Amino acid sequence: MADIRALTFDVFGTVVDWRSGVAREAEAVLRARGHLLDWAVFADRWRALYVPAMAKVSRGERPFVILDELHRENLVALLKMDGIEDLTETDIDALNRAWHRLDPWPDVVEGLTRLKRRFILATLSNGNIALMVNMARRGGLPWDVILGAEVARAYKPTPEAYDSTAGFLQLAPEQCLMVAAHASDLRAAATRGFRTAYVHRPDEYGPAGAGRPWPADTFDYAVPDFIALADALGA
Amino acid sequence: MADIRALTFDVFGTVVDWRSGVAREAEAVLRARGHLLDWAVFADRWRALYVPAMAKVSRGERPFVILDELHRENLVALLKMDGIEDLTETDIDALNRAWHRLDPWPDVVEGLTRLKRRFILATLSNGNIALMVNMARRGGLPWDVILGAEVARAYKPTPEAYDSTAGFLQLAPEQCLMVAAHASDLRAAATRGFRTAYVHRPDEYGPAGAGRPWPADTFDYAVPDFIALADALGA
Repeated sequence: MADIRALTFDVFGTVVDWRSGVAREAEAVLRARGHLLDWAVFADRWRALYVPAMAKVSRGERPFVILDELHRENLVALLKMDGIEDLTETDIDALNRAWHRLDPWPDVVEGLTRLKRRFILATLSNGNIALMVNMARRGGLPWDVILGAEVARAYKPTPEAYDSTAGFLQLAPEQCLMVAAHASDLRAAATRGFRTAYVHRPDEYGPAGAGRPWPADTFDYAVPDFIALADALGA
Repeated sequence: MADIRALTFDVFGTVVDWRSGVAREAEAVLRARGHLLDWAVFADRWRALYVPAMAKVSRGERPFVILDELHRENLVALLKMDGIEDLTETDIDALNRAWHRLDPWPDVVEGLTRLKRRFILATLSNGNIALMVNMARRGGLPWDVILGAEVARAYKPTPEAYDSTAGFLQLAPEQCLMVAAHASDLRAAATRGFRTAYVHRPDEYGPAGAGRPWPADTFDYAVPDFIALADALGA
């Protein structure tokens, strides 16, 4: 593992707690209008629409659009399903930016700060550039570079998303360590030659995940958090 | 000026001293092979080939290629002109990476650190992503995001380079302040609606530039360095 030069990070779930953040932001906008929902379930339902929406782009059924746009379309669909009709376009835009205002897991800033001393830290998220920038400034995430779907114009897990990210960094894929809480992302990265680090985030889908098992896959690293990743990488 | 949200920076000449850095790196590679040149003039001659090379891309005479590739083609041409034939491909690659190893002007890190507290800091350089990342890590440049030619797939001063950068940030152009030591870059940015900050770098072309006049243009800000820019912007 001596020649790892860059760490490429999945972000939603791996770096930030999207579920509680989206729930909090949804409550802030919707409760003011008199709506009462299970906010965490609202976050789960919104999140659930994301994979099929991306897949349409990845299958070539529509041109590339950024994640903010997919999120907004999905939000409009969700509000319609719930019969919520009193939000203005401005309200919807504000609520959609919930995804820009998510908090990192407690170990993240310390872990990234240590890892940055030794490695290039790049996002390799499906989130778009402005989303990543706003999130990083809010949470103090010390990225060296924002890469991922918008820069690559391809969503994970398509091969182009990984290949082009290594290319932008002028690194061979084996010099890149993909860091993610999702085995599917790591498996896709590994098929493109990336090294892999699994980070266990049992709370991604809420406290009920406490017993969530670690994946059976063999990854180069498998750690409980970013502090342990820094330890494992000698950073 | 209350609504400036992002500062977009020209880099070569504005943030880093390319001339002395390229001269130093050229000397390190070429002197070892027994070549003796005026290293600063070598840097100037290499730099002089950059604008016509980019212009071919911007005029659509060839597909977009990154700056590292243009730099390398120009370096090969320069070495040929000088009758230097004993460099290996590896030597040429190493010398070409001189542009990744340039030092910031003395005021830059302090100025950027202050400015970052208040504004998004983005590169808007013609340099490619890996170049910007390597330079930033070496020099401690605290960018929030690497934007510019490779992300936009368009070189300054074409309108697309500025328009798409504001777009990636989801900002109106008037929320972006272009910071550059070159009036031509600022004029082009202004035509796309950016605000403008001129930074006077009389030493860009060496000590002989000490008497270099300030441009006659009216920009939103005109300052001697990044400390003064932070002062002017209340950061």
